[in-house]
Amino acid sequence: MVKTRILLTIEYDGSAYAGWQRQKNALAIQQVLEEAVSKLQGQKTVLHGSGRTDAGVHALGQCAHFDCICTIPPEKWTFVLNNILPDDIRIRKSREVAADFHARYWACDKTYQYIIYNCQVASAIKRHQTGFVPYPLDRTAMEQALPSLLGTHDFAAFMATHGGQEDTVRTIYAASLEKRGDTFLFYIRGNGFLRNMVRIIVGTLIDIGRGRLQPNVFTQAYERKDRQLLGDTAPASGLYLQQVRYDSYWEEKILDNVDQNG
Amino acid sequence: MVKTRILLTIEYDGSAYAGWQRQKNALAIQQVLEEAVSKLQGQKTVLHGSGRTDAGVHALGQCAHFDCICTIPPEKWTFVLNNILPDDIRIRKSREVAADFHARYWACDKTYQYIIYNCQVASAIKRHQTGFVPYPLDRTAMEQALPSLLGTHDFAAFMATHGGQEDTVRTIYAASLEKRGDTFLFYIRGNGFLRNMVRIIVGTLIDIGRGRLQPNVFTQAYERKDRQLLGDTAPASGLYLQQVRYDSYWEEKILDNVDQNG
Repeated sequence: MVKTRILLTIEYDGSAYAGWQRQKNALAIQQVLEEAVSKLQGQKTVLHGSGRTDAGVHALGQCAHFDCICTIPPEKWTFVLNNILPDDIRIRKSREVAADFHARYWACDKTYQYIIYNCQVASAIKRHQTGFVPYPLDRTAMEQALPSLLGTHDFAAFMATHGGQEDTVRTIYAASLEKRGDTFLFYIRGNGFLRNMVRIIVGTLIDIGRGRLQPNVFTQAYERKDRQLLGDTAPASGLYLQQVRYDSYWEEKILDNVDQNG
Repeated sequence: MVKTRILLTIEYDGSAYAGWQRQKNALAIQQVLEEAVSKLQGQKTVLHGSGRTDAGVHALGQCAHFDCICTIPPEKWTFVLNNILPDDIRIRKSREVAADFHARYWACDKTYQYIIYNCQVASAIKRHQTGFVPYPLDRTAMEQALPSLLGTHDFAAFMATHGGQEDTVRTIYAASLEKRGDTFLFYIRGNGFLRNMVRIIVGTLIDIGRGRLQPNVFTQAYERKDRQLLGDTAPASGLYLQQVRYDSYWEEKILDNVDQNG
């Protein structure tokens, strides 16, 4: 049987799930998707994601691949999966990729977005889609800390306790902060992120905005590798995996492959 | 016992509720709020809203008043109510108003907002906060229909079947349409709205945008008073009661009253 490797781009509201990765005692997004694909193929199918997201974290553009062994055309997977998935998980795009493509190993960078709702009273409507901060935040102080995030650093201090990752060096390509009304939008793009790393960065930025930490605290944390120097882990509800990017070299290879088969 | 009339400004996510108005067999937002106020006062208290919202409709600024017979200061009601309310209902503001103030009778205009998510694939994250339209929409055609909404008209055709209202004349002060990415934002301000009126207007605008109805259809519907001329009722999930405005004359009276008591 001919195998076709399919890449899915996935949006999900993480509120009801124990995170991306399949678990024993709780429902994960990966499990829901694997069961849907397996049902349609009539055979147990494994889905390989670009990486995990934690319980309650959302995605606008998570990526995952699997091998199609049935007759459903690559682009039709969007429609057939959305037909049977719960409405808090949506396939935004499906396409054929090279036979050796891997959603995790081929990812060249990821962008996360964090939305802070900064107001005295919490929001009823945005409660599952933002992190709520009732204290006034000094935007200038927060922005002063951003340049120190850029570049290659040892982020050992920026990790959940028992995060388990051994190689803690990552490269950050971009970090920015926007203010829109009562909302702060934080964007960060890098070649990879440790467990809880974005939420610890955001929790620290909030403490910098409150005047409880200095804007140079990230630099101190690289040197001393001490989690205690940084702020609390910001709530999962404000975090979005926005985009996973694959190298243009691979993008071309993907297209070549599709052309040959199309 | 001295009575103080309190005006609440309320935000709610209507997804889990049977609408604003207290009902026999389903949970309404009014009931949740009345029970919270009654519990704090130690006495059954009636809450008077500015008007109903339907099941699934949200509010950013619903207004309601009640009589305070306990020692909680007017501004503290925000905090004490938010402490015991479920997190899909938030008090945004509380203040003292004149003893003869009435949230419904004194309202001089209301503004509704409707958010259309216009994309081929539905949104997982915004599914309870938007109305989803998968068809391409012609913005220019929709905008052409807006001026005919303005002014005083008989909106008899713009009403839920068995809507029950006898006086069907209303005045619309403003109507606008914005496009932001995949989203259309529709705003309408008027001196009052019939049951389902905003959702019927939006459903009709969608049909105009799809080319199934002409931009002059609102004018035809005023004349012929025929519900069949108009589009479907748009989903409740995209509708927000954004603001209830009280006349500046009354606003001053409110302030005078508070000053006298403060």
